[in-house]
Amino acid sequence: MARQVDHQDWIRQELETLSTSLGFRYTPRKEIENRLRRLRAAMKESGIEAFLAVQKMDYFYLSGTSQDALLFVPLEGEPLLMVKRELERARVESPLQAVIAMQSTRDLPDLIRAHWGRLPETLGVEMDILPARDYFRYEILFEGSRLVDSSSVIRDVRKIKSPFEIDLMRKAGEIGERVYTEARGFLREGMTEIEFGGLMEATAKALGHEGLIRVRSFNYEAYSWHVLSGPNGGIVSQSDSPMGGLGLSAAFPVGASLRPMKAHEPILVDFGICYQGYQADQTRMFSIGTLDSKFLDAYNACRKIHDAVLAQTRPGADCEKLFLDTVRLAEELGYKDSYLGPPGLQCRFIGHGIGLELNEFPFLALGQSYPLEAGMTFAVEPKIVFPGEGSVGVENTVLVTEDGPEILTPLTQEILET
Amino acid sequence: MARQVDHQDWIRQELETLSTSLGFRYTPRKEIENRLRRLRAAMKESGIEAFLAVQKMDYFYLSGTSQDALLFVPLEGEPLLMVKRELERARVESPLQAVIAMQSTRDLPDLIRAHWGRLPETLGVEMDILPARDYFRYEILFEGSRLVDSSSVIRDVRKIKSPFEIDLMRKAGEIGERVYTEARGFLREGMTEIEFGGLMEATAKALGHEGLIRVRSFNYEAYSWHVLSGPNGGIVSQSDSPMGGLGLSAAFPVGASLRPMKAHEPILVDFGICYQGYQADQTRMFSIGTLDSKFLDAYNACRKIHDAVLAQTRPGADCEKLFLDTVRLAEELGYKDSYLGPPGLQCRFIGHGIGLELNEFPFLALGQSYPLEAGMTFAVEPKIVFPGEGSVGVENTVLVTEDGPEILTPLTQEILET
Repeated sequence: MARQVDHQDWIRQELETLSTSLGFRYTPRKEIENRLRRLRAAMKESGIEAFLAVQKMDYFYLSGTSQDALLFVPLEGEPLLMVKRELERARVESPLQAVIAMQSTRDLPDLIRAHWGRLPETLGVEMDILPARDYFRYEILFEGSRLVDSSSVIRDVRKIKSPFEIDLMRKAGEIGERVYTEARGFLREGMTEIEFGGLMEATAKALGHEGLIRVRSFNYEAYSWHVLSGPNGGIVSQSDSPMGGLGLSAAFPVGASLRPMKAHEPILVDFGICYQGYQADQTRMFSIGTLDSKFLDAYNACRKIHDAVLAQTRPGADCEKLFLDTVRLAEELGYKDSYLGPPGLQCRFIGHGIGLELNEFPFLALGQSYPLEAGMTFAVEPKIVFPGEGSVGVENTVLVTEDGPEILTPLTQEILET
Repeated sequence: MARQVDHQDWIRQELETLSTSLGFRYTPRKEIENRLRRLRAAMKESGIEAFLAVQKMDYFYLSGTSQDALLFVPLEGEPLLMVKRELERARVESPLQAVIAMQSTRDLPDLIRAHWGRLPETLGVEMDILPARDYFRYEILFEGSRLVDSSSVIRDVRKIKSPFEIDLMRKAGEIGERVYTEARGFLREGMTEIEFGGLMEATAKALGHEGLIRVRSFNYEAYSWHVLSGPNGGIVSQSDSPMGGLGLSAAFPVGASLRPMKAHEPILVDFGICYQGYQADQTRMFSIGTLDSKFLDAYNACRKIHDAVLAQTRPGADCEKLFLDTVRLAEELGYKDSYLGPPGLQCRFIGHGIGLELNEFPFLALGQSYPLEAGMTFAVEPKIVFPGEGSVGVENTVLVTEDGPEILTPLTQEILET
């Protein structure tokens, strides 16, 4: 045991020194308290007595740590964070009071009883993402409790960003600006798409980009290296996006490929940055030499559509209407058949909520009729596809404020010609 | 409709041209037939009349495509691949006969009835990974069927690799060799861990590495940039591995950090390569200048342990015994308290199956008492941790053959000193 205690002391000191010197932004106690307050109001409304956060970004949001753990949040009383591996690290990272070790998921009911006195009558779980096998295990462990799908409860709370979160997204946007600016300097004719994407990633990482782009899904894989040149920009793939690209194989058939890029063809780069967990998404066009007027015109149409969305971005604006208005505008501008995908495969969204994950609320999309609210953040991305020739598009990450939109991705919207 | 047909013709032609010229290795028909034959034998043994593959790597393995799709495999009769987005691309990639469009998951029962005449009495699903909400949806869609957890059926089939798969893993190993060799050339004192990891990634991608490292888990995130220098090598994190590293933030607290690397400290790099979906995993030590004898001795111990595992690697060897023998050997060599983690946080595995995912069968671990079989592939990774100072370790990806082990990661096992 003496050894174990030594290690605990050491790790606490080491982590505090290292993480401070390397710019870690731990979630402040006040921030966590505010999030818990908002979650509890939503739980009360849904009739849930306690919420069990299992998904990593959900419990990171509520606790400040993403160590291997489970978080129990009762409507009344202290939350309990149960940590499976590195307890001391979770304690350094999380401002929660009750952070304890858990040897096995089997111990969950006993740990909750010891902390809270009993098991809850209704327990909210994240059924949208929790595997069926784990769910059935919880059903047995919480035999007397009613398990309720509370995915939308936590997702609803997460959709409104705090100043702390917006600040991290703004920093992600600033990293994006530097990455695209440096990329313009190293883009060369004959470089493959993946080589270019890889160098952009290396540049981003050196600036603090975390590499991972997160999506709430058991099957959907996000990535940064979405570099599509010429005809690759017209290829649709597994992802629900206007263009998927060729990718590197049938096993990963999206994004950049080994195709060498040529002069005078459109090079679309949709590159997300993740800083301290928070993402900013942006798309810009590169070109080696000038682009044909067909692409320039289409790109200007994308910018008009982008600006039209921003002109309507304010609390109360309906998300489905925002999307449908862009479809009408694209048609007026002459891009009915090429807007958001090739004919027959056109996407039905123009924007997606973004924060810790890439598919947060709101969705500016068909069937998503609800109002924008102040504090929401979304990426808006009009794109136009010409099969066999290429794609163009622009994308920014936007914050909804009472006074209208604020762009969090400050990079120039001009084409990045080299 | 005319437009849609045009697009189909175009995409087929375009994909065939592009993917051929860029080296795509589509899964051959014979290979798919063999996999289906082995799956069906396992299904028969488990009493499953049909299997529904929903998880991307499962249906990629059985169909050759990872487009957004569901795959229905009856015990008797043709499999049915139902594609949600880019049908033509799935048709180019998959040698299956019945590849059709699916507008919505709602249509699943009707599509199966139209293809197979009826719904199955028992339907195997991947409950280890399928979200509870999706599972309950399938329960309603397949009202008269009994849903059975068949995760282990498909995972068992996938654990034995074919010559086609081994060839792709060998190629991944060769890319790894080139990446480490080039990395030795660009490692510099003062470079941050993440800068070095990012450059290694960019190098790997330019050679065809797909960037993603896949794990079968709803919460566990794999990554390539596991670069741990000096004291960062002694930090444990969320992952079930001997050392996690500091990472870039509390949101992604594993792997490389923004710490500048120094001369004479151990730099452990555990870097997975993914080629055409297939992975090879390897760990080597870098150093800028010479290492202290403490680290050199520990590294030699890791190599001895590695070699001892390989000396026992043959069909029939027990996976738990392989692990336990290394624990005993580590103790004999004087590393009882530092083997596989700091005191109190030592891991209980020395190897993990690898292929399309990083956590395939077999596991050379505590509690995993079953025999190795010819055609299995695993990564073996002895590591030794000195909290506050650093970590050392070596890792190779190994194929089990009738004649013993074959290393698929050919890189030199010497320390990569610059």
